Amino acid sequence: MDTQQALNPLFNPAAVAVVGASEVPGKAAERRTRSLLEGRYPGRVYLINPKRDSLFGIQAYPSLAAVDGPLDLAMIVIPGRLIPQAVQDAAEKGAKGVIIITAGLGETGEEGKRIEAQIMDIADRHGVHVIGPNCSGMYSASGQMNFLGIPMIRSGHLSVLAQSGNIIDSLTHFARRRGRGFSRIISSGNAVGVRFHDYIDFLAGDPQTQVILLYLESIKQGDAFIQACRKATRTKPIVAIKVGRTNAGRRASASHTGALAADDRIVEAAFEQAGIIRVSNIDEMFDLAEAFLDCPKPKGNRVAILSEGGGDNSVAADNAGRWGLEVPMLSAEIQERIKAHLLAGMPAHNPIDYGGTAEENPPVIAACVEAVMAADEVDMVYLTGFFGGFKDIIAPHVGPLEAEASRRLVELVRQSGKPLAVHTSFALEDYEAVSVLRQGGIPVHASSDRAAQCLSALARQAVSSRSPEAVQPAKPDGSRRSKVLKIVEAARREGRKNLLETESLEILRLYGLRLPPVAFAPSPGEAAVEARKLGFPVAIKIVSPDILHKSDVGGVKLNLASATAVKNSARAVLKQIAVERSTARIDGFLVSPMAPPGQECIFGVFRDPGFGPVIMFGLGGIFVEALKDVAFGVAPLSASDVDRMIRSIRGYRLLTGFRGEGEKDIEAVRRLIERLSLIATENPDLAELDLNPVIVHSHGSSVVDARIILTA
Amino acid sequence: MDTQQALNPLFNPAAVAVVGASEVPGKAAERRTRSLLEGRYPGRVYLINPKRDSLFGIQAYPSLAAVDGPLDLAMIVIPGRLIPQAVQDAAEKGAKGVIIITAGLGETGEEGKRIEAQIMDIADRHGVHVIGPNCSGMYSASGQMNFLGIPMIRSGHLSVLAQSGNIIDSLTHFARRRGRGFSRIISSGNAVGVRFHDYIDFLAGDPQTQVILLYLESIKQGDAFIQACRKATRTKPIVAIKVGRTNAGRRASASHTGALAADDRIVEAAFEQAGIIRVSNIDEMFDLAEAFLDCPKPKGNRVAILSEGGGDNSVAADNAGRWGLEVPMLSAEIQERIKAHLLAGMPAHNPIDYGGTAEENPPVIAACVEAVMAADEVDMVYLTGFFGGFKDIIAPHVGPLEAEASRRLVELVRQSGKPLAVHTSFALEDYEAVSVLRQGGIPVHASSDRAAQCLSALARQAVSSRSPEAVQPAKPDGSRRSKVLKIVEAARREGRKNLLETESLEILRLYGLRLPPVAFAPSPGEAAVEARKLGFPVAIKIVSPDILHKSDVGGVKLNLASATAVKNSARAVLKQIAVERSTARIDGFLVSPMAPPGQECIFGVFRDPGFGPVIMFGLGGIFVEALKDVAFGVAPLSASDVDRMIRSIRGYRLLTGFRGEGEKDIEAVRRLIERLSLIATENPDLAELDLNPVIVHSHGSSVVDARIILTA
Repeated sequence: MDTQQALNPLFNPAAVAVVGASEVPGKAAERRTRSLLEGRYPGRVYLINPKRDSLFGIQAYPSLAAVDGPLDLAMIVIPGRLIPQAVQDAAEKGAKGVIIITAGLGETGEEGKRIEAQIMDIADRHGVHVIGPNCSGMYSASGQMNFLGIPMIRSGHLSVLAQSGNIIDSLTHFARRRGRGFSRIISSGNAVGVRFHDYIDFLAGDPQTQVILLYLESIKQGDAFIQACRKATRTKPIVAIKVGRTNAGRRASASHTGALAADDRIVEAAFEQAGIIRVSNIDEMFDLAEAFLDCPKPKGNRVAILSEGGGDNSVAADNAGRWGLEVPMLSAEIQERIKAHLLAGMPAHNPIDYGGTAEENPPVIAACVEAVMAADEVDMVYLTGFFGGFKDIIAPHVGPLEAEASRRLVELVRQSGKPLAVHTSFALEDYEAVSVLRQGGIPVHASSDRAAQCLSALARQAVSSRSPEAVQPAKPDGSRRSKVLKIVEAARREGRKNLLETESLEILRLYGLRLPPVAFAPSPGEAAVEARKLGFPVAIKIVSPDILHKSDVGGVKLNLASATAVKNSARAVLKQIAVERSTARIDGFLVSPMAPPGQECIFGVFRDPGFGPVIMFGLGGIFVEALKDVAFGVAPLSASDVDRMIRSIRGYRLLTGFRGEGEKDIEAVRRLIERLSLIATENPDLAELDLNPVIVHSHGSSVVDARIILTA
Repeated sequence: MDTQQALNPLFNPAAVAVVGASEVPGKAAERRTRSLLEGRYPGRVYLINPKRDSLFGIQAYPSLAAVDGPLDLAMIVIPGRLIPQAVQDAAEKGAKGVIIITAGLGETGEEGKRIEAQIMDIADRHGVHVIGPNCSGMYSASGQMNFLGIPMIRSGHLSVLAQSGNIIDSLTHFARRRGRGFSRIISSGNAVGVRFHDYIDFLAGDPQTQVILLYLESIKQGDAFIQACRKATRTKPIVAIKVGRTNAGRRASASHTGALAADDRIVEAAFEQAGIIRVSNIDEMFDLAEAFLDCPKPKGNRVAILSEGGGDNSVAADNAGRWGLEVPMLSAEIQERIKAHLLAGMPAHNPIDYGGTAEENPPVIAACVEAVMAADEVDMVYLTGFFGGFKDIIAPHVGPLEAEASRRLVELVRQSGKPLAVHTSFALEDYEAVSVLRQGGIPVHASSDRAAQCLSALARQAVSSRSPEAVQPAKPDGSRRSKVLKIVEAARREGRKNLLETESLEILRLYGLRLPPVAFAPSPGEAAVEARKLGFPVAIKIVSPDILHKSDVGGVKLNLASATAVKNSARAVLKQIAVERSTARIDGFLVSPMAPPGQECIFGVFRDPGFGPVIMFGLGGIFVEALKDVAFGVAPLSASDVDRMIRSIRGYRLLTGFRGEGEKDIEAVRRLIERLSLIATENPDLAELDLNPVIVHSHGSSVVDARIILTA
């Protein structure tokens, strides 16, 4: 849907109703009605309560049907079984949307799901957009509407989309303390109507929103969500908390260590692809949000660190490193410019220690910052130490000089367009130098680590916004797709969920994968004939719709060096299967040349309940099994997603040439991952795809075994 | 030395002198003299300045020699070349110690080192303890002496030992804001006299010190340091910042990615062994310090999490997991007790969400906390959300109820002896409920993450203090040692730094390592004879004092299956060496049976410039080379150090039985590491020892190659 057109009326309604309005203090309906009435909402408000004639000193109506004018939006806070009727009534009064606060529906069980379905049925028929249920309301600056039950929310440039009410309380509290405001605050609840990715699109297109803050507990329709975020982060940052990062967070119990760890690795990969900046806590989230609101966008991640002492500089440099910032050696030219302000003989490579000259004369700090900001080799500046507090440490007369330096720093940021983050032990003091910085849009942190984290987030967002990336098309190629469908349907007709290896290979071939030669032979004798054509040594594998794990029944024989060996082995296979799986239907054998040596890898596709098709890549054998050395990507993938996957495995060096082994064909790996992403995206009926192992050579690769399982 | 006896006089002097006293504002000497005079120092103060008759309104002396009474301590702030004389003068006046503030000595080059040596020569002769040089002073609560140049330091229970002056400024500033005080603050500087481990011993024995805070840039005599800390952490926590964690921190440049990463892994291992709690930033350090000052010691790491909302609970559970805390499911019994306070049907497994009942009635929170604290299955409590701010969110009348809950929480901690950490979005507000908690010794954090970090630190320290661990003896076993020394001396006499493999194996055998049978044979013919005795297949290796890397010259032949093969191979080896290394002396061959299959591992010893002998263990081959999958330990090791090393490698599963492979002999691995630690500790002349590979079998292990290099 065009989310601007669809959702704008809900966020800018001319008339709203509260169904289930109440005056009982502390009640959900009371708090939300009060925040609406005490705010500046300029439109009409209808309060619905069959037991009252008036509420909050204005008229109350017995039902929506009794309301005397048209309606754009209704907030509903009544028992679940009454909601479908209320949605029907709202639709008849012309409502474009409803916000359902009521909890205890789909999240509690079948009965609730049934009511939700009923609601959506009515809503869809009338074109009513549903927010919630089980949500805590909404705030809209443009609509001057506060339906959250939280007082005193200011208009501003942050927007929030959250699956938890108390996180919204925290964020609005932070904002109040720091004088920040919001454009939209949306509590999505069960999101049965408007989906998470719709909201993302909507916020991406909202001109007042500069930063999007997300709080997520679970992810549904993750592929659409990731695509929406990928698009949104080209123009504005998304900072997200996704809980369930650890087992404790996921299960409220640490007893299943490791078992579910992969889940969060998929989240990490997906967020990386989408350019989402992930944090763990609300205080981090707010600090990053403020940095995005106030700071210019850096060109890269190279930072200059300055302080009056070695200790703070060392701590800062470690922080910078931990957050992925580069702390480059400065060029001789820039060093000379800085040295002009330092005591003779002091180094100025970076970090820069102006100790001894700046403490009594803080404008020296601004002069050093000016010198590094002028340098092309520096993208950002990170000031650490005691700035603002020299007047306490040295002497009171230094105070005004610090304030002067602050004013100059504000000017320098504006002129250079390079962000500056300040850490000082005096961040919590109410000193002039610090407040001049803050008022000038320079973040001042009490934690050195947080300053580095903010700079790192700025640099990451700059990357996301720089070059909009081509992503694989999500729409299927019709002819390929119809060929796959034929194979799938044939298997389904036979009641098979597992494709035969011949079928799996056929699908891979349809997608342009170059596969090693392989021949099908219905009997041992014909296998020997095929082997001779292919050249020895060969491998043979049984082909049977009833045998999934071929090795388990001795159905694979490797390294057969002669026609006789092939024939005898094939016969032995048949004999063993006749004993162990007497009812198995046997189609014949696949014969293929033994793959030349190379690096064993594993490639896979599976469907995550949250994210849809996920591509996996790793080094094979013990690497994947004992070390879990695998990378994930959520399909469809961009070129840089594929690149990240390949580079992120710990054993990457084994691909680049190592210990006398030549470089492996990384281009072939890339191609394989890209093709799998296409296959997974175009063919929703493939549940799992496993290429294990694939031998990657210095030129090309050999798919030694391929297995596809269909969806149920 | 007995550091209490040695250093106590320096920290409790009856008379002190300032050599180089000055009244010029902002000068190092001026600030320190002023902090001394403006403090409560009760003893005599002699100010030395040849150009002045009086300073700060008291008499000044031209030199220490001119002083009219005895002296315990002299602070020296004069040019380097004048210091030796000043130390001599101080000694003659009876000084037990000197603090040398002057910088630009050993840290700048040879001339400085020469002066330092001169100083130490004089000091040692007179039994004068030297603090510094290049330090920023000291504070001693018991001596009522502030020689730091930082005003208004209160007496209290923190002690600081730092290699950076501005970190001390930060910590004292934090303390001032938070009303905390210190017992000792020591700036160690170049530490040419009193060493870092002496200070640790001293602070460990100081009854007023409850928490030791360290700031380290480099570590010298790390083995003594680690032993001192290991002992200290049995009775009090050590919280440390060690910079140089990242390459950026170490080199102020991120250009050498990875190259030095191992260094910090040794630091990590050493800190783990010593029970040191490592942090990265000053704000973390101070928060942890306060938790240690105020909180009772937990029995374990199992935490109950409580909040009024799911969002904060989920964030907290993730934080807990990240910090290694366990969030156990609560027993049915405890759940029932909690459910009595919740809305009907709400779960109480942990985390516990009392949302809906507590917001208007905060004593419910205290009741829930009481229920979990009564449970044996919970060691600590972690409260998260909006506590203290319900009066804003709900209604003003809730305020007094929150304060009442706070008082009860303080009582509960006292009664139960279980720590409680509180995170609330209202931590920075000046509300009664929050200040009651803080005054009652309950930490209140604005960051949920920090609350979890503090609880985690409390749990870790509880482990360190619980069972003092036996560590391997540091004193050599005389007879073993003298046998090793004979081998070492023989090699040195021949000008060899590399021991022959026969010599290396002999040393390993002296330390009780069970080695596979191996025979020496001077000629190909005799090699064949020995091989027959040992049983085929065998490996042969050349033995030559001139050939270190045997494989490089074709000096190793594997899998020889007959006497003829042995003889022919040995001859071929001689032939090849005659061509490639015509001058090499040949002693003969080592013959050994081929090791049976198993897991290839690597064991090593090397000497770290900071920590001394370090033991390394990892899986062999690509694991160590491509994945750097190795663990470090600083010798001497305790049993649990060895255990940690083995368990910490990522491929640990390959030892415990994996993929059809049987379990490997982990006891043999343990024994090997323990023996290497003994060898390294007892024999300082062994610079490097490499066992690579060692094949670990299901029973026992085979050392396939052993190499020892002597120190220069």
